[in-house]
Amino acid sequence: MDERVREHAEVLVDWSARVDPGDDVVLDVAEDAHDLAVAVAEALGERGATVTTLYGSDEVTRAYLKGHEAGAAGDGAGAAAGDVEPDADDPEPRFGEPAVDLALFETADVYLRLGGGRNTTATADVERATRRAYASSRTDVREARMATDWVSTVHPTRSLAQQAGMAYEEYREFVYDAVLRDWEALAEEMAELKAIIDAGDEVRIVTERDDAPDTDVTMSVAGRTAVNSAASVAYDSHNLPSGEVFTAPYATEGEAFFDVPMTIDATRVQDVHLAFEDGEVVDFSADAGEDALASILDTDPGARRLGELGIGMNRGIDRFTDSILFDEKMGDTVHLAVGRAYGACLPEGESGNESAVHVDLISDVSEDSFIAVDGEVVQRNGTFRWEDGFEESN
Amino acid sequence: MDERVREHAEVLVDWSARVDPGDDVVLDVAEDAHDLAVAVAEALGERGATVTTLYGSDEVTRAYLKGHEAGAAGDGAGAAAGDVEPDADDPEPRFGEPAVDLALFETADVYLRLGGGRNTTATADVERATRRAYASSRTDVREARMATDWVSTVHPTRSLAQQAGMAYEEYREFVYDAVLRDWEALAEEMAELKAIIDAGDEVRIVTERDDAPDTDVTMSVAGRTAVNSAASVAYDSHNLPSGEVFTAPYATEGEAFFDVPMTIDATRVQDVHLAFEDGEVVDFSADAGEDALASILDTDPGARRLGELGIGMNRGIDRFTDSILFDEKMGDTVHLAVGRAYGACLPEGESGNESAVHVDLISDVSEDSFIAVDGEVVQRNGTFRWEDGFEESN
Repeated sequence: MDERVREHAEVLVDWSARVDPGDDVVLDVAEDAHDLAVAVAEALGERGATVTTLYGSDEVTRAYLKGHEAGAAGDGAGAAAGDVEPDADDPEPRFGEPAVDLALFETADVYLRLGGGRNTTATADVERATRRAYASSRTDVREARMATDWVSTVHPTRSLAQQAGMAYEEYREFVYDAVLRDWEALAEEMAELKAIIDAGDEVRIVTERDDAPDTDVTMSVAGRTAVNSAASVAYDSHNLPSGEVFTAPYATEGEAFFDVPMTIDATRVQDVHLAFEDGEVVDFSADAGEDALASILDTDPGARRLGELGIGMNRGIDRFTDSILFDEKMGDTVHLAVGRAYGACLPEGESGNESAVHVDLISDVSEDSFIAVDGEVVQRNGTFRWEDGFEESN
Repeated sequence: MDERVREHAEVLVDWSARVDPGDDVVLDVAEDAHDLAVAVAEALGERGATVTTLYGSDEVTRAYLKGHEAGAAGDGAGAAAGDVEPDADDPEPRFGEPAVDLALFETADVYLRLGGGRNTTATADVERATRRAYASSRTDVREARMATDWVSTVHPTRSLAQQAGMAYEEYREFVYDAVLRDWEALAEEMAELKAIIDAGDEVRIVTERDDAPDTDVTMSVAGRTAVNSAASVAYDSHNLPSGEVFTAPYATEGEAFFDVPMTIDATRVQDVHLAFEDGEVVDFSADAGEDALASILDTDPGARRLGELGIGMNRGIDRFTDSILFDEKMGDTVHLAVGRAYGACLPEGESGNESAVHVDLISDVSEDSFIAVDGEVVQRNGTFRWEDGFEESN
């Protein structure tokens, strides 16, 4: 086995999930994440945890959902299915309460998701209503899962390499560069940025590039708390890799341009422009995927306000791969998400922006740009003020 | 997908496990049983059941157990593992209580095990003490699992084909011939044999072949109940394929010879001879694997008495493949197991032969042989008395 697979497992178990002896761990393994599952299981055995291993196969899920569609349509053997049959007034497909999954996550201390399937579009032909009904039958399961010390990571597979537009070996290098960091050092560096943002009232982001529309946007962060997302449950951070500082801004004003292309709801979205007034998107455009963008912004009132400002600080990620797990953490990028805010950024008991969506839009800030807090430049052209080569002004 | 995979899934879900709408099903998928898992998930979706999918990977289990060995030996990161550290007086490795697995099986209605890994010897290098400790930590889990409507089957994989000494395509034909039966018709036929054995007091098995030692063995079945093992939980039968009638005999007398080769504890065992007096093995030999046989018989007092007499009636199984799931059900065979008896064969509240082992030994009775109940021949040369061509006497 590639030694990096073992190192990945050790970072996941020790740094990210902080597994202790006696912890009850649920390991959820995508189809082609077998090698990482083997390495993680070995690490869990060494640390004296118990392990229950789930098969997190999108193809199995797709088959279950398609079977459900066939059964609900009455052409399957389960057409007479008593307590799950939709009633006449309710054309929505219905799913039973997933009691086993609920018992499982309510008992677990730690949940480790090892992504890495065989096809990132494996569930593409499942009806939207079916997905929605399935997701809503699993609200309690999701809550129980989020109440564990959960961490999501990926094993580099050929399918993910293809999604990233990369060769397999090249993609493996990319993933391990992103995952096998000195997390303790990065956490300390991110703590500096968090302290500045927590102490500040207003964040301003400016980009002035010859080849793209300008960004000049300000937002309030007063009373909000930034998360030092250092890829560990000890930092309220549940992705490996991570490496960003994020908070929940409000009262956004100005114009923002997002040059990083991404796939949203199976649609390529590129070169998005948003105009904000009084915290709300009042105008928008996109060179590609404008309809998809419009549909997101129209979801609900909260979808037109920001839920997140994030500043990517993982310099092990050196390119965009059309995967939010990596893209939003890339060093020298910022992202703004329309939609739902994270509770960890809000004062105790206060609710932030609410929405059914949370869609991140990303800008490269490595050149011709700065980020300022209360008028003081914190990062210019991708260099933070505490780093060598930082220039106070242009 | 091969249509036979779908048929296999339907037999498993409908005939074997009798899945009802609303049932909570745990699907346990070996590494290479993916295609069958997809077909089973689709069938469960159609029938309105819920599904939780486990990854039943021997390689993941092996890694966990080896990790535990390394941790217990003190050379792993978990050397200080508090509550699982063996104490000085107890050199046995210790495993924590698997709370998640317990919650999971206590909540499940149905458990479907889809065998079909990548290597039948994947756990070969795990210490015996580790296996034993692991198994004993899982006694409650096992009991909870056995309390569900559980069924065990296999998806034909290259690893199982290799174990059987067959080409992959050839092995697939073999498995589907065994699994895709007219189970209702076979259940009716087996009911005839069950009725005869239940009404009888003594079973006698005789083989007289030129090329092998004779068998002439009698055993009491008075007061015992035969199981019509028709591959369905509705018949107390938990294997797919099945196709045998079995009971718990006692007071065995005579000589028995078993010509079917098999692997027991990684040792090839062939041409076993057992001599019984007063229900107990008083002499034994084997052309191959005699030491392994001796070790089994010396396990405990019950290991020298019979726990099972089984009569194979699945004529879809036409050869021996060194897999007990198939071999013991092959049409025109009988098997006797030394060791533990099944509760289903015993009068309510009565305990039968008890032992830590249950090892089946198989004889071909398709030629030069007969099976009699209370002196009346029931099968001669592989033909039952209700079948065309049956001869009352030689």
